[in-house]
Amino acid sequence: MRFELKQATEILSQTPFTLQRMLEGLSEDWTVSSGDVESWGVYDVIGHLIHGEETDWIERAEIILAQGENRTFVPFDRTAQFETAKDKSLEELLTEFAYLRSSNLERLARMELTDDNLKLKGMHPELGEVSLEQLLATWVVHDLNHTAQISKILAKQYDAEVGPWKEYLSVLK
Amino acid sequence: MRFELKQATEILSQTPFTLQRMLEGLSEDWTVSSGDVESWGVYDVIGHLIHGEETDWIERAEIILAQGENRTFVPFDRTAQFETAKDKSLEELLTEFAYLRSSNLERLARMELTDDNLKLKGMHPELGEVSLEQLLATWVVHDLNHTAQISKILAKQYDAEVGPWKEYLSVLK
Repeated sequence: MRFELKQATEILSQTPFTLQRMLEGLSEDWTVSSGDVESWGVYDVIGHLIHGEETDWIERAEIILAQGENRTFVPFDRTAQFETAKDKSLEELLTEFAYLRSSNLERLARMELTDDNLKLKGMHPELGEVSLEQLLATWVVHDLNHTAQISKILAKQYDAEVGPWKEYLSVLK
Repeated sequence: MRFELKQATEILSQTPFTLQRMLEGLSEDWTVSSGDVESWGVYDVIGHLIHGEETDWIERAEIILAQGENRTFVPFDRTAQFETAKDKSLEELLTEFAYLRSSNLERLARMELTDDNLKLKGMHPELGEVSLEQLLATWVVHDLNHTAQISKILAKQYDAEVGPWKEYLSVLK
């Protein structure tokens, strides 16, 4: 598929609700923070998604659109959630993520992006030149990346419980 | 985590609703059948989940519980959905999956399984002896496996659109 703003927004809009449906009502054993920046729990993933809404995607889109002298993005802190999210319940985090995403999608809509806008470029601190279109496609894939990661974290809890079936279950590999 | 029926049922109950929330309203480009048994589209995954509800999990649980002379499961057809699902809409498949899952969870509840029941064994045609507990844990992980697979199939559609970000996105690997 070629990138289209409407189709990208379909995924971005549903992610918070997908995750709420997937996680609310699960026993805390399934979703608890790992407390380990090297091996996240479900709780830590939602904190990471929130931090992205607050500091990454839309902020970077605005840097690109402004086409100012310095178009280099502020580096993203991938483990900020271990500090910022630690006193909240998972339900609170999911609600916060849904609120921030909805607000960011409004900001995106107000940009009224044209095809020419989507070709504008900014500077990623590690990856070099990237376009607005690539940024928005990455926002979508980043959602899906972490939805898959959450499925994997949940599945891993039953790694020893499936017995010989393990070899058929790629999510456990 | 050790297997517990209550916690397992939490995941089994929410999967159909998670997938509805994730997929309903997406453009067909995201979800269309691949028509290729080697490389499934989202549509094909839902068909596969339906076939599992119809022929696999609860049927096998009943074979184990009955402890009859022949405890060997009927082999599961992993690509049956390419024949059975082909004339339905994705929404119809999602509704069918939710209905079958709910009905199977009622059958599971009516079994009133004890810890002793969970240790009973059946014979998998390829894997050999497996317990009822392992079967039920695998049902859960199988849901999560295919939820992760759906995220991956969706993400792959933007494989070329994310540009240099690809190296950060494990779901594209």
